[in-house]
Amino acid sequence: MYNPWLEGLIKNALEEDVGSGDLTSCGVVEASLTGEGKIYAREAGVVAGLEVARKVFQVVDPGVQFTPYFKDGDRVERGDSVALVSGALLSLLTAERTALNFLQRMSGIASVTREFCDLLGDSGVQLLDTRKTTPGLRFLEKYAVRAGGGRNHRFGLYDGVLIKENHIVAAGGVKKALQKVKGSVPVTVKIEIEVTSMEQLREALQEGPDIIMLDNWDVEKLEEAVRLARGKAKLEVSGEVTRERLKEIISAGVDYVSSGYLTHTSGILNFSFLLLKENAKR
Amino acid sequence: MYNPWLEGLIKNALEEDVGSGDLTSCGVVEASLTGEGKIYAREAGVVAGLEVARKVFQVVDPGVQFTPYFKDGDRVERGDSVALVSGALLSLLTAERTALNFLQRMSGIASVTREFCDLLGDSGVQLLDTRKTTPGLRFLEKYAVRAGGGRNHRFGLYDGVLIKENHIVAAGGVKKALQKVKGSVPVTVKIEIEVTSMEQLREALQEGPDIIMLDNWDVEKLEEAVRLARGKAKLEVSGEVTRERLKEIISAGVDYVSSGYLTHTSGILNFSFLLLKENAKR
Amino acid sequence: MYNPWLEGLIKNALEEDVGSGDLTSCGVVEASLTGEGKIYAREAGVVAGLEVARKVFQVVDPGVQFTPYFKDGDRVERGDSVALVSGALLSLLTAERTALNFLQRMSGIASVTREFCDLLGDSGVQLLDTRKTTPGLRFLEKYAVRAGGGRNHRFGLYDGVLIKENHIVAAGGVKKALQKVKGSVPVTVKIEIEVTSMEQLREALQEGPDIIMLDNWDVEKLEEAVRLARGKAKLEVSGEVTRERLKEIISAGVDYVSSGYLTHTSGILNFSFLLLKENAKR
Amino acid sequence: MYNPWLEGLIKNALEEDVGSGDLTSCGVVEASLTGEGKIYAREAGVVAGLEVARKVFQVVDPGVQFTPYFKDGDRVERGDSVALVSGALLSLLTAERTALNFLQRMSGIASVTREFCDLLGDSGVQLLDTRKTTPGLRFLEKYAVRAGGGRNHRFGLYDGVLIKENHIVAAGGVKKALQKVKGSVPVTVKIEIEVTSMEQLREALQEGPDIIMLDNWDVEKLEEAVRLARGKAKLEVSGEVTRERLKEIISAGVDYVSSGYLTHTSGILNFSFLLLKENAKR
Amino acid sequence: MYNPWLEGLIKNALEEDVGSGDLTSCGVVEASLTGEGKIYAREAGVVAGLEVARKVFQVVDPGVQFTPYFKDGDRVERGDSVALVSGALLSLLTAERTALNFLQRMSGIASVTREFCDLLGDSGVQLLDTRKTTPGLRFLEKYAVRAGGGRNHRFGLYDGVLIKENHIVAAGGVKKALQKVKGSVPVTVKIEIEVTSMEQLREALQEGPDIIMLDNWDVEKLEEAVRLARGKAKLEVSGEVTRERLKEIISAGVDYVSSGYLTHTSGILNFSFLLLKENAKR
Amino acid sequence: MYNPWLEGLIKNALEEDVGSGDLTSCGVVEASLTGEGKIYAREAGVVAGLEVARKVFQVVDPGVQFTPYFKDGDRVERGDSVALVSGALLSLLTAERTALNFLQRMSGIASVTREFCDLLGDSGVQLLDTRKTTPGLRFLEKYAVRAGGGRNHRFGLYDGVLIKENHIVAAGGVKKALQKVKGSVPVTVKIEIEVTSMEQLREALQEGPDIIMLDNWDVEKLEEAVRLARGKAKLEVSGEVTRERLKEIISAGVDYVSSGYLTHTSGILNFSFLLLKENAKR
Repeated sequence: MYNPWLEGLIKNALEEDVGSGDLTSCGVVEASLTGEGKIYAREAGVVAGLEVARKVFQVVDPGVQFTPYFKDGDRVERGDSVALVSGALLSLLTAERTALNFLQRMSGIASVTREFCDLLGDSGVQLLDTRKTTPGLRFLEKYAVRAGGGRNHRFGLYDGVLIKENHIVAAGGVKKALQKVKGSVPVTVKIEIEVTSMEQLREALQEGPDIIMLDNWDVEKLEEAVRLARGKAKLEVSGEVTRERLKEIISAGVDYVSSGYLTHTSGILNFSFLLLKENAKR
Repeated sequence: MYNPWLEGLIKNALEEDVGSGDLTSCGVVEASLTGEGKIYAREAGVVAGLEVARKVFQVVDPGVQFTPYFKDGDRVERGDSVALVSGALLSLLTAERTALNFLQRMSGIASVTREFCDLLGDSGVQLLDTRKTTPGLRFLEKYAVRAGGGRNHRFGLYDGVLIKENHIVAAGGVKKALQKVKGSVPVTVKIEIEVTSMEQLREALQEGPDIIMLDNWDVEKLEEAVRLARGKAKLEVSGEVTRERLKEIISAGVDYVSSGYLTHTSGILNFSFLLLKENAKR
Repeated sequence: MYNPWLEGLIKNALEEDVGSGDLTSCGVVEASLTGEGKIYAREAGVVAGLEVARKVFQVVDPGVQFTPYFKDGDRVERGDSVALVSGALLSLLTAERTALNFLQRMSGIASVTREFCDLLGDSGVQLLDTRKTTPGLRFLEKYAVRAGGGRNHRFGLYDGVLIKENHIVAAGGVKKALQKVKGSVPVTVKIEIEVTSMEQLREALQEGPDIIMLDNWDVEKLEEAVRLARGKAKLEVSGEVTRERLKEIISAGVDYVSSGYLTHTSGILNFSFLLLKENAKR
Repeated sequence: MYNPWLEGLIKNALEEDVGSGDLTSCGVVEASLTGEGKIYAREAGVVAGLEVARKVFQVVDPGVQFTPYFKDGDRVERGDSVALVSGALLSLLTAERTALNFLQRMSGIASVTREFCDLLGDSGVQLLDTRKTTPGLRFLEKYAVRAGGGRNHRFGLYDGVLIKENHIVAAGGVKKALQKVKGSVPVTVKIEIEVTSMEQLREALQEGPDIIMLDNWDVEKLEEAVRLARGKAKLEVSGEVTRERLKEIISAGVDYVSSGYLTHTSGILNFSFLLLKENAKR
Repeated sequence: MYNPWLEGLIKNALEEDVGSGDLTSCGVVEASLTGEGKIYAREAGVVAGLEVARKVFQVVDPGVQFTPYFKDGDRVERGDSVALVSGALLSLLTAERTALNFLQRMSGIASVTREFCDLLGDSGVQLLDTRKTTPGLRFLEKYAVRAGGGRNHRFGLYDGVLIKENHIVAAGGVKKALQKVKGSVPVTVKIEIEVTSMEQLREALQEGPDIIMLDNWDVEKLEEAVRLARGKAKLEVSGEVTRERLKEIISAGVDYVSSGYLTHTSGILNFSFLLLKENAKR
Repeated sequence: MYNPWLEGLIKNALEEDVGSGDLTSCGVVEASLTGEGKIYAREAGVVAGLEVARKVFQVVDPGVQFTPYFKDGDRVERGDSVALVSGALLSLLTAERTALNFLQRMSGIASVTREFCDLLGDSGVQLLDTRKTTPGLRFLEKYAVRAGGGRNHRFGLYDGVLIKENHIVAAGGVKKALQKVKGSVPVTVKIEIEVTSMEQLREALQEGPDIIMLDNWDVEKLEEAVRLARGKAKLEVSGEVTRERLKEIISAGVDYVSSGYLTHTSGILNFSFLLLKENAKR
């Protein structure tokens, strides 16, 4: 699957870490040595980013072999080795940290996403991400959300319309905002609007948006919103997501629940790279 | 303070978010409208990244005015407004999310760092970061660590030597590793080595490294290490950092404690951008 | 309106043309001379790209003044001067050709688009562009289509789904293709499918795509398609667009007609830059 | 033949089209499928850009095989298949449109150039291009002119001197302009001047330029210019080029005729990519 | 005078030097301090690169004022101050070394070029540079040659033809090489060929090249070459250039003498930046 | 050994030289020809940059074979062939000059460094480079210093602290400068200060810097400085380096001597690329 941004992203990350050179490895390790190591999971979770880790090693040295034992989206247990990496020892040591930095963050996101999805179960409510991502890493973080079982909201300002409170004020109301935007954007993107009251919801429904976002509505209002919107627009609930809140959301019967937490506070899933001792002369 | 990487980083982040254009704002907001808004802290912590946020707005539109009410490293309380932003409404709405994404992450790191530093108090032990940072954002994350009161370990593989277990194996021992590296690296960087036993510590001390790292040593061993290394090398403790562990580290009398947690799991400090209602025609 | 790609595009274009320097102007023109010139339309049409032209001059020299007499989307007649440009003579002469190359191509597209839109009149059928654009210039060309009164189809493979014949074959049929894609793409993009027969149309309608494309269907089939799809999906007609064909499309009552011709064969609208004789010493 | 710009140009074009990913193909096509397809000419003309098309496919996926059946500059008939492309189905579908966008434009230019050259026949008059090219694509468009049998004028402002009317005014006359430039530019580039009268032509000839450009001169004046310039300078005629005008130009005996039409209004030569049905599991 | 490459070149140079930050200045200098300093010549020579030095300071900080006391190409004596620089002290200290590194190299080239030109006096022989330049700096180095009074040979492989011995062998002889190239290259560039014998010279002259290069020919052969080529082609002499050799070249009456020494071995002209003591609080 | 900057540097250099294409080679040489050539040393010295030269050829054409006969740091004699290069003739001719431009400069630096190191012999004094390097080439030039037997001082402002006179003035004295910087910089970099008097030296020693620089101190003062600093700080001598000066430095017993001459005035070591005549059709 071709992504035109990945290679540049990896090169930037290596430039940031390696700069004028890996002083330690170049100073200590003979260039002729080869070796192999394994990437181990230090905690249980969902792995994501194995192909990114592979590419980090191979940008450093195309001769490195990377054999994954899992695929993105798989569940791993503490102690599982997720990939075998072999090649010039110098290359392995130079690339290791950058490879893990990607893998750990992506797997952290996938793991949290999977937890949330499990709570949603077969309720039919879909878990969405947001634009609250790490600058520069959005496409990887949204990939990790998919690997964890979530679904993507728009990638940026360019591939979806989301009219928020500030836009409504600037446009002079819900109706005007929707009317203006309907005729001007590409015909291939959907139109979503965030409403803060039942009146705004009714006003919005008259203009036929594709999705309506409800931020922190309580469960009674959610249920009424579902009745009003049925067959007319999808409903998305945003705001803090707890186990109890999810139950309410499920019972209300909305379509989507979105959470910035998945990408901005997920933390990492911890991996380590351990060199196997048997190194051989090249 | 000039940083040659910042502008490119911000342009990349905006490219990622804005792409072919901000469909919503361009569809809804008249280009002639101006406005002003404030960035509010939604929780208490330490702010970092205000100049980065300013630059995001000004890359989008050099005409935007950004007036900070705090400076990086300051403590903010929930509800504090940290900056006033004014200019073309379209520009404010396009830039807002990217500016907050930087500010939130950097402030999250500064806030956690401050908490850890407070625990260290005036013990003389310094808190250090690691290379476990977000790919592409390392210099901002390490800046945030400083804003929170921490101190930087090396920025990358190029500005410091850190010999780890894998390097020792590859070199054939602690002594050989240190001897090899001492004569080959720039005279301006320090040499650090990670040791896993008292024997390795003694062997290392004979070669005069500048810093010795002890990973997860228990308190008795730490105290012995301090006695051995006194006046010969600085000691850095790494590993998981808890309140109890910090007490041990302080009592043992080491020089540095380093933690990857600061940058890989700190989470964000939550901010929001609220448009003030009074917009005027330009 | 901020576009993160524009400046890089202009710099590339100037790099391509100026390279190691403008030999003629630097060899002939005193650096101290200033001047002013006008950009004239050499044929009637719709102007688009004035802000791009301005930016070309100002990337070469921020001191150049550019005063447009029209705005993008305006109709111009042969002989109209569309902008006044003044500043260092050397800068004007270096920038001129690149500025015109952008302006001419964008205005050519806007002019042809306007012609087609005029033929569609108030029929309610909207004219769409395609991905058959000049590599590297797509966002400018799609902007020009909007300036001419057309509307954009998706910008790329990333902001809309369009299932074509090859995809249907690969997926094993219309139904399977639609089912697969529905659950996997961002919830903010629409799903379109191209069908080649009435059977495929019926099969598609059961899966609820947002838009259905009909390539070169004759008018009777179009009318039947409109009856079948009413209230269920939008219909887009593609293929060669002639005056007669447009009449059929209008009478059939489809929603959109798309044409690659707008961007791949529109040709240019001819402009020239004439220096006014009165140059003064700076 | 190495060109240092080509890879970057192709990557930009793919970035523009693919962005965060090919939603349709990734959503519909199994990653394990392979296939092969052919690129067909949908009209007769001269093909140019086959190596560019190949490189587009191979930037997307180095494993794609591209077997051309023609070479650039060859004449193709409607229905001819010009290349066979095989590999991962996903890669073929992602790359197809960008590859065709390059091929169609370049072949359009080559085809028009060939038509014009055929009109010039063996008259000895050479057909030249201009700087009126698509921003960013100049070197490909000038390559296509050569593929069609034309010859290149300068690539940019850096590899040739062309003194136009504005320069003459700025310099204070034909003589001064030529004298100034003669001593200052690299010794390896030629000096050309555009003259608008017989007096200017005579004045120019005294300073020994390499080429003199005559814009829209009528045939009698052309013939006189040829007599005056014989053995002293080459003559280039510019302006609108029609069948009748070409006859005049040939009969007058000038050396070159240049036309912006070749690159700014040539339109495309239409190709399509058809997948052969027999796909196999990898 | 616009050069599209300069800003990128300066940014690269600063990135290389400043990287993640100027540790010393940021650690020692209060951000509120301002200051001014002068750039002094530490030896006599010809200055070149003042605008480049200015731009280095202003890329670091647009608020820095740079007032040159000389212009490029001027002779300076030891102790002359060539520019006054004032602004934020931190910015001056960060930019200083990079600014001087450019200025010193360019002035070194201009100084050596001037010496050689002085030896040529009013002989009419012009001094040319070569492609033996520092990778990445060619356009600055060729600019410095012009500042020193020399003239440029081609900038690269793209703006001039120079057929060397290897090309002649590959083409199958002088005649074939010239015939092949004459019809294929842009009409705006000149054709030069290097010949190694009188026979090759005669063969070349029959095909009418613009320039003929003679490498290390002795003075008698040079004189004969001048007689043969008079009125037919310019002659360029290359090879080691000494005072005696220059006399021979002048007496022989060739047109150009070219020397790689100007750019590959010129060394620097030494400058220093001295801060004036009176710094004021901002 | 992975360096993240090398490929970009080489691509820039080729872009600068090849631009829109190699007119001569493409015009003269059949694309089907292959050949081989050797790179010869035209003077004795120390070779450095063979891997860079290889990469230049292989960026132009991955099919080129490059077989080095020496390795970086080896001594070569006049006439030695240092590498065999074979492949498509067109590729060899296009890449040759750029490859040699790198190789010549790097070998020039290595050769001068070796000469200086030989003078230092086994005295224990180490030869250091400076930041007076060619903009954009610093990491290659510092690599060449190592190849010649020298050792690197800091690479830039980011990987070492060097407090100079201007910093001392700005900070308000030696003591204040050192105290300020000690707590703020990464714990992995060393702190160096330049002192101009015995008083400053004593003041500095009280704050425990790692290295002290003495610029142009006479031999008696050097000897006293060595006595004072013994066991407390390393001493570095800078300034002009002559054979006599080196003797003084050695006898005084300082640790390091640094010289800008190595990189700013070393000149080149001359190499040529000669094509072997036997070319074969591919």
